[in-house]
Amino acid sequence: MSEVITLAHGSGGRKTSELIAGIFKKYLGNSFFTADDAAVLPRPSGKIAMSTDGFIVSPWKYPGGNIGRLAVCGTVNDLACMGAKPLYLTCSYVIEEGFPVSDLEEIAKAMGETAKEAGVYIVAGDTKVAGKGQVDKIFITTAGVGVIEDGIETSGRFARPGDAIIVTGDVGRHGTTILLARDEYGIEADCTSDCAPLWQPVSEALKVCPGMHVIRDATRGGVGTVLYEIAAEANVGIRISRQDIPVSDEVRGVTGLLGLEPLYLACEGRMVMMCPKDKADAVVEALSAFEYTKGARIIGEVTEDNIGKVITVTEVGGQTYLPQPGNELLPRIC
Amino acid sequence: MSEVITLAHGSGGRKTSELIAGIFKKYLGNSFFTADDAAVLPRPSGKIAMSTDGFIVSPWKYPGGNIGRLAVCGTVNDLACMGAKPLYLTCSYVIEEGFPVSDLEEIAKAMGETAKEAGVYIVAGDTKVAGKGQVDKIFITTAGVGVIEDGIETSGRFARPGDAIIVTGDVGRHGTTILLARDEYGIEADCTSDCAPLWQPVSEALKVCPGMHVIRDATRGGVGTVLYEIAAEANVGIRISRQDIPVSDEVRGVTGLLGLEPLYLACEGRMVMMCPKDKADAVVEALSAFEYTKGARIIGEVTEDNIGKVITVTEVGGQTYLPQPGNELLPRIC
Repeated sequence: MSEVITLAHGSGGRKTSELIAGIFKKYLGNSFFTADDAAVLPRPSGKIAMSTDGFIVSPWKYPGGNIGRLAVCGTVNDLACMGAKPLYLTCSYVIEEGFPVSDLEEIAKAMGETAKEAGVYIVAGDTKVAGKGQVDKIFITTAGVGVIEDGIETSGRFARPGDAIIVTGDVGRHGTTILLARDEYGIEADCTSDCAPLWQPVSEALKVCPGMHVIRDATRGGVGTVLYEIAAEANVGIRISRQDIPVSDEVRGVTGLLGLEPLYLACEGRMVMMCPKDKADAVVEALSAFEYTKGARIIGEVTEDNIGKVITVTEVGGQTYLPQPGNELLPRIC
Repeated sequence: MSEVITLAHGSGGRKTSELIAGIFKKYLGNSFFTADDAAVLPRPSGKIAMSTDGFIVSPWKYPGGNIGRLAVCGTVNDLACMGAKPLYLTCSYVIEEGFPVSDLEEIAKAMGETAKEAGVYIVAGDTKVAGKGQVDKIFITTAGVGVIEDGIETSGRFARPGDAIIVTGDVGRHGTTILLARDEYGIEADCTSDCAPLWQPVSEALKVCPGMHVIRDATRGGVGTVLYEIAAEANVGIRISRQDIPVSDEVRGVTGLLGLEPLYLACEGRMVMMCPKDKADAVVEALSAFEYTKGARIIGEVTEDNIGKVITVTEVGGQTYLPQPGNELLPRIC
C-alpha cells in the first residue's frame, strides 16, 4: 500500500478496496461487517436508540487516546445515556489527501480495540478523500444503534426536585489534555484524557436504580453546560457543592493558571446522572466498582427554586450562580 | 440569527441550540427527533439494515439537487439495496466558519423535503463547526436504519449465471451534472442530476420478484464499477449490450466531447439489479410505473464464462472488455 492517502483511495475503486481490506477490515472486521451497501443485522430485542456524532480534533492524538477511540466512545456513551446497550456502530471517514497511511492504521486500531472493549460491532463504513487543504487531516463520524433495556426511560426532561446529582468522575480532563497537547501555552502537566466507553458501569447503575431519571454525558460543553441544559428542559433548579466536584490536581493547576472554569471543560468519559435521593448512594457504590467511574461522587441536588439556573455552593458556604455557558468553547477542542 | 456560521454555532452551547431550533428542528423535526443524547425508537418489526455515507461535493448545489438531498438519497438507497424499508436517519454536519446561514437553511430544507418524500424520519443529528480553511464549506454524513421485509435477501455474492441485469434508468447524469456545474470545460448542456430516493420502486420490484439476487446503487464509480465488484464477489462473468444501456443525449454529448465512459460516471438515483431471467420483464414493468425508474432496461446477463470480467457487446456485434475501473474518478465528484 502507498504510504500516504491519495484521492484514488476515495474513488470507490480498487484503491478504496485495498484500504478497506488492508486497514478497516483488519482492525474493525467482524461477522456483521459488510461489503454490501448496508449491514444486515438481527431483529433487536426491544426499543432501539439511535445517535450520531462527528469528530474533529486537533491534534488527532493526545495523552490517553486518539480520534479513533474518541469516535467510538462518543457514540457508545450517547446510547448509554438513554439506557441503551450499544450494539452496532457505523463509521464514516473524510481524510485529507496526503494523510499518512500509518496514522490511519493507528486510528483504525484504536477504534477496533475500543469497540471490542465497549462490546459493540462496527458494521458499516464509508471513506471519502478530500483534496489537500479541503479538510484538516481527518474527520470521523460515527452513528450507533443500541437496544433499550425493559423498563428504562431516561431523559433530560425527567429531572425532579429532590433528585441527587452524580458525576461519574473528575471533570475537565479531556479539554485540559487537548489544550496542553496543542502546546500553545508552554504549560507542562501530566494530564490524560478521560475518554472511555461507559456502558458497563451505566448498566450496573441502572440495575440498582432502574428508575434513574437522567443520564447525560458531559462532552463539548462540560458538566456546566449539561446542568444548564437539564435545568431548562425539566424546568427545575440545580444546586451543586463546589467542594464535592471532583477535579484532579493537574486540571486544577492548569485551569487556575489560565483562569478557566473546570465545569466548562470537555470530558469524554464522564456522565451526569440524576436519580431519586434514596438511591444515590447505591448508584455511587455500583459505579465505584469500575475503573472508569471509580471517582463517582454526589455533587448536588435538583431544586424547586431557581428554575433554569445552576447555583454553586462555595467552599465557605456562600451561594453563587454558575455563569451561563458562553458562546465559544474555551479552549476550542472540537 | 447571525448571517454566517460562527465557531460558537458548534460549541454545544446557546448558539448551537439556536441553530437547532431555527433550522434543523424547523425543517427536519418530527415526533422522533431528539433533544437527548440519542433518539428512542420503537422495536423494528424484523431484521434491520444499517448503513452510512459521507458527502462532500463541490459545488454544493447543482441542477437537480444539492448536498442535502444527496445525503438523504444516498443512505436511503443503500438501505433499499438490501431490501430494507428505510425508517430512520441520523445526520452529522461539519460546517466551515463563515458559511452563510441561508445556504445551510436551503440544504436543511432539501433534506427535510427529501426525507418526507422517502418516508424516512431524521431522528438525531450533530453539528460541528470547523475553522476557516479546515473544511471545504460543508460535509454531511448520514447513517440509516431500515427494516428488512420477510423473505428478502440480496447481496452482491448472490449473482448467478443466467441472471438478467437491469439498470433502473439512464446512466451518468449525476457525474455529468457536477462536471458541468464546475464550469471548468466551457461546455453547456441541459443536464440535471438523477439524485432520487428509490425505496418505493425497489419495494414494488421486490413484490414481483421476492427472490431478487442483487440490488446495488451505482454511485461514485458508476455502473461499470458496480458490475466489476459483483463479478468479483459472486465469481461470475458479466455481459452487457452497449446498445441497451440507456444514456441521455446530454450525457452522450458531453462524454463524447471529453472522451469519458458513461458507465464510469456517477449516478445518484440508479440501481443495478440482477434477478432470474424469467422475472426480469415483470421487474422492469414494475419499475416503469415510477417517475424515477421509468427508464428501467435490461442491459445484459450474468455468465459462467469470463469470470471476474465485464464484456460489452458493441452496437455492431463485436465483444470487448469494459476497461477495469481506474484509480481516480474522472471527473472527481466527491
